[in-house]
Amino acid sequence: MTADSAWLGLQRLPEVTVHASGVLAQTIRAELRQIRRFRTDVQVAVCTVARVRETALWREVEAALPEYGLGVEGFVVVRRGNDLVVAAEGGHGLLYGYFYLLRYFEWMTDDFSVVERPAVPIRMLDHWDELSGEVQRGYSGNSIFFRDGEVVDDLTRVRSYARLLASVGINAVALATAELPDVARLAGVFREYGIALNLAVDFVDDPRDERVVRWWAATIARVYDVVPDLGGLVLRTAPDPEAANLLARAVAPYGGTIFWRCSGADFRQDWRDRRTDRARAAYDAVVPLDGRFEENVVVQLPHGPLEFQVREPVSPLFAELQETVFGVELQVTQEYSGQQRDLCYLGPWWREILQFDTSGSNGYQGATVADRIGAIVADRIGAIVAVSNIGDDPNWTGHKLAQSNLYAFGRLAWDPAVDPVSLLHEWAAATFAMDDRTRGELVAIMAGSWHTYERYTAPLGVGYMVTPGSHYGPSVNGYEFSDTGRYHFADRYGVGVDRTVKTGSGLTAQYPEPLASRYEDPYSCPDELLLFFHHVPYDHVLQSGVTVLQHIYDTHFQGYAEVEAMVERWQAIADRFEPAVRHNVTARFEQQLANAREWRDQVNTFFHRLSGVADARGRTIHR
Amino acid sequence: MTADSAWLGLQRLPEVTVHASGVLAQTIRAELRQIRRFRTDVQVAVCTVARVRETALWREVEAALPEYGLGVEGFVVVRRGNDLVVAAEGGHGLLYGYFYLLRYFEWMTDDFSVVERPAVPIRMLDHWDELSGEVQRGYSGNSIFFRDGEVVDDLTRVRSYARLLASVGINAVALATAELPDVARLAGVFREYGIALNLAVDFVDDPRDERVVRWWAATIARVYDVVPDLGGLVLRTAPDPEAANLLARAVAPYGGTIFWRCSGADFRQDWRDRRTDRARAAYDAVVPLDGRFEENVVVQLPHGPLEFQVREPVSPLFAELQETVFGVELQVTQEYSGQQRDLCYLGPWWREILQFDTSGSNGYQGATVADRIGAIVADRIGAIVAVSNIGDDPNWTGHKLAQSNLYAFGRLAWDPAVDPVSLLHEWAAATFAMDDRTRGELVAIMAGSWHTYERYTAPLGVGYMVTPGSHYGPSVNGYEFSDTGRYHFADRYGVGVDRTVKTGSGLTAQYPEPLASRYEDPYSCPDELLLFFHHVPYDHVLQSGVTVLQHIYDTHFQGYAEVEAMVERWQAIADRFEPAVRHNVTARFEQQLANAREWRDQVNTFFHRLSGVADARGRTIHR
Repeated sequence: MTADSAWLGLQRLPEVTVHASGVLAQTIRAELRQIRRFRTDVQVAVCTVARVRETALWREVEAALPEYGLGVEGFVVVRRGNDLVVAAEGGHGLLYGYFYLLRYFEWMTDDFSVVERPAVPIRMLDHWDELSGEVQRGYSGNSIFFRDGEVVDDLTRVRSYARLLASVGINAVALATAELPDVARLAGVFREYGIALNLAVDFVDDPRDERVVRWWAATIARVYDVVPDLGGLVLRTAPDPEAANLLARAVAPYGGTIFWRCSGADFRQDWRDRRTDRARAAYDAVVPLDGRFEENVVVQLPHGPLEFQVREPVSPLFAELQETVFGVELQVTQEYSGQQRDLCYLGPWWREILQFDTSGSNGYQGATVADRIGAIVADRIGAIVAVSNIGDDPNWTGHKLAQSNLYAFGRLAWDPAVDPVSLLHEWAAATFAMDDRTRGELVAIMAGSWHTYERYTAPLGVGYMVTPGSHYGPSVNGYEFSDTGRYHFADRYGVGVDRTVKTGSGLTAQYPEPLASRYEDPYSCPDELLLFFHHVPYDHVLQSGVTVLQHIYDTHFQGYAEVEAMVERWQAIADRFEPAVRHNVTARFEQQLANAREWRDQVNTFFHRLSGVADARGRTIHR
Repeated sequence: MTADSAWLGLQRLPEVTVHASGVLAQTIRAELRQIRRFRTDVQVAVCTVARVRETALWREVEAALPEYGLGVEGFVVVRRGNDLVVAAEGGHGLLYGYFYLLRYFEWMTDDFSVVERPAVPIRMLDHWDELSGEVQRGYSGNSIFFRDGEVVDDLTRVRSYARLLASVGINAVALATAELPDVARLAGVFREYGIALNLAVDFVDDPRDERVVRWWAATIARVYDVVPDLGGLVLRTAPDPEAANLLARAVAPYGGTIFWRCSGADFRQDWRDRRTDRARAAYDAVVPLDGRFEENVVVQLPHGPLEFQVREPVSPLFAELQETVFGVELQVTQEYSGQQRDLCYLGPWWREILQFDTSGSNGYQGATVADRIGAIVADRIGAIVAVSNIGDDPNWTGHKLAQSNLYAFGRLAWDPAVDPVSLLHEWAAATFAMDDRTRGELVAIMAGSWHTYERYTAPLGVGYMVTPGSHYGPSVNGYEFSDTGRYHFADRYGVGVDRTVKTGSGLTAQYPEPLASRYEDPYSCPDELLLFFHHVPYDHVLQSGVTVLQHIYDTHFQGYAEVEAMVERWQAIADRFEPAVRHNVTARFEQQLANAREWRDQVNTFFHRLSGVADARGRTIHR
């Protein structure tokens, strides 16, 4: 089945001349041969800075060039009258400039100039596709890369994917390893779009064993022999950190990078033991290692102390690490956010994380998470990484509207300051041929869907409450007595996890001031994180003025009502979409409505049974 | 790997002469060739009643023969001085008489005579083995019958199994269908041991469609062509009852039987809906059909209104049905009773069920469940059925001591009045070569294990509280908000399912008086079923004198302590067992201890969090 063209199906350009050479210039030329054209008087050129002197816009481009340079991936776009030029130092910048042109050309009606540079050097998507074709934590069908133990023969779909990624600025992917000729084939496809292939490996050996060191050195040499521009290796399940250093030394001669994931996936504890806290684990493991990694190791850290919950505080490591280059890991795949059955546009959440102010007593006043990525040690590299949400579903992402998350991730990884609702407009305009009013309505339906999802699921940052294993749908006590550290500790008096220094696990002390004090005090802790940091009685009054219990009831009724409203608004515009989209989105909304109803009723009934307190507004809570 | 010989490895007999012919007489002769011998002056004969005149004991045998006859499967054993004869009408009775001899010969030291007849005509084990080799709800490895989509070539293990079954009186098995020649091979092996093969089928067609009727008639003819003594068909998932009648008419010419299972496995409801009650479903479905089944249909009913919980009331259908022949279904496989990781000897539970007095206003005063099986309509057949617990594990049942459940099931299906602790002694003596004191200790460890299991799991008949899916280990709220009807409705005030007529689902009215009134009133309802029939406050005082909540705490501490004691007692005798048994049982006890600890702590903490009431005896309940 042909994959849909996602956000690259509607664009048109005028004639464009390309003054550059190399693989990526070839890609731009090939792109231009396929793109629909329209007539205009504007003369458009894509060319290297070195050759821009030959164009009419040299003076303007020269004036626009920043002092600090464009870098490998930056570009400048200048229009004066009927002349428009996209200029960059080389192929990567030109490719991103080309996609910028493709995205915005129809809006470039006046003279203007713009300089774009990515916020962080590595913008990567991880893929947990197995060679069998299964996708771990995938909700969009099987792998587009692998089937029956090997790489698929026909890489057409992979090329379409690479194109989508490049168009939003992704420059790296991680995939499981396969036979070397197949790895080379995959790397070749991604190379055409400026994307570095990385290999995800499980390291199980003893990194201090000389035979292990030699085996890896030899293996890495063989891989770089066939893929000289391999990005590096991703260590999926963080082993001994020395393994990262061993591999870092082995890939260093080739310019490679090692991504050492510290995901906490293997965390285990006894639920009876209240002193142990999963949320402390990553910090406690990584801080003693600060400064002990090789220069080309990126420590890849989940965005929060837990694991991709819909609401968590930002990881204290982003403020704390002094000498370690890190990557922040997000989840584009909606493991804990509706699994592409429920609409949950995550752009606002990611922006909030990336723009989070880590400032405080650590000396990085005003520095956001995104600022600190890659800024820790000069000339070293940081990353924004996420697990992808795509599979061989015809629409890539299972839920057609979940394409927006892939789009937004790429764009935010390039520019963490961009407004996520603007991104939605941009994505919708590129994806659907429709009038402005319908697009506005679609964006309005989608823009608040993360907050809606948060409202009908686990309350006030407490997390989890999902069905064990699948992680879809409610099971309030599902993990409560497990060995996974995922607890809410609800009893007849109250709920929440005490992570204070005073009486709890002491997680708050992992944050710099003033964050530490802010989180430590339940009256200054942000409402949305209250149950993450505190165990409070049900009648504790939030900063919003309602009790914790009434907040739980209110948000769950409201969350469900919001899904109802989303469905109604969608029904009013659904017939303006092509049948495949209409049916897909309508069917997913039906599932979401049923899911939101289960969440609302199970959470409300659970807390009503515990507390015995009725809803102040008299709505139905089942016994 | 060779399978262990279970309870058939130690027996010895003197020389025995066989005066009979036919397949089963041949089997007895073959058995005798393999059995160890010992010298004695006793002359032993196995012979048909017709030929017993030629023996010295004719007069004594004639005197012993009951007026109502021996039937096909009955037998008489008579000893006078040094002459001992086992007599029966034909091969089946002789085979069972032979195994009786094998079991008891060494105790037959004086003159005596005994007549044995089975309580019910069909004593069957169902096997949910799939052709792939997987065993649904199996905890003892893979199938001994099937592998990779077909019947195994080597039926040695199947023959050993048939022998074990025949030795305890089982005369029917149900298996998935396979290719006809393979079905014939399996039937042939079981035939040698007097066991009728039945085929388990899923009926998904419209039984009113003439083409469907013709297809089944033709198919059944082909099956009986190769297996003329096929027992019949087991309809695993109860479809339209008309399907049972259709198939009954199709197998009638061959003397076949249809088993129509009414298991409730597909029951679904909304947890918000308190009027719907899974426990009512079987009764509500079957009662309107009473009298509407063909004569050769056996309605196969789980022993209780739910599904094989460790404690439930007996199904009201056993008292209610007037014109329908039924079979009671038990679970030898320990789905809800520890999955052969935990020791749980179920003999006492099964005896309690089979000997349950159904009497009351229905006119069957004094009739037990076992009495009513097959006694409903003269000359029609009832059954005692169970899902088997065996697999290709070297010791058959995963837990070596779980062999006792297979043993006890067969013996109780033959004679529901036999004392289950005597059965344990019998089984232990046949299984282990050991001194009487060690055997007594082993029996003491095992005898109360069902009550121990009941104590540390779901309290007072409320059931479930198991991990969804696997059904091993605790998850108190695991099914509480599911669509499966498996609820406990615990809140901060109380717990239990209100199934009264007055305020609940009305299940109590399905029972005849005086049971209905007894169950309806929480002060006359047996303690062990209180939470099955009633939702009561935590401070409700049981007939035992303690509150419900204190009972929960007490039994959970006690249940765990009992497992600790079992383990200690086992450790004291373990070295008297061969290494394979010692290691197997010791390892399983370790798992059981961990499991009992989780159950104790999770159940106690769950109810402590809800109730806020501390243990009256000050033991540790985790927060």
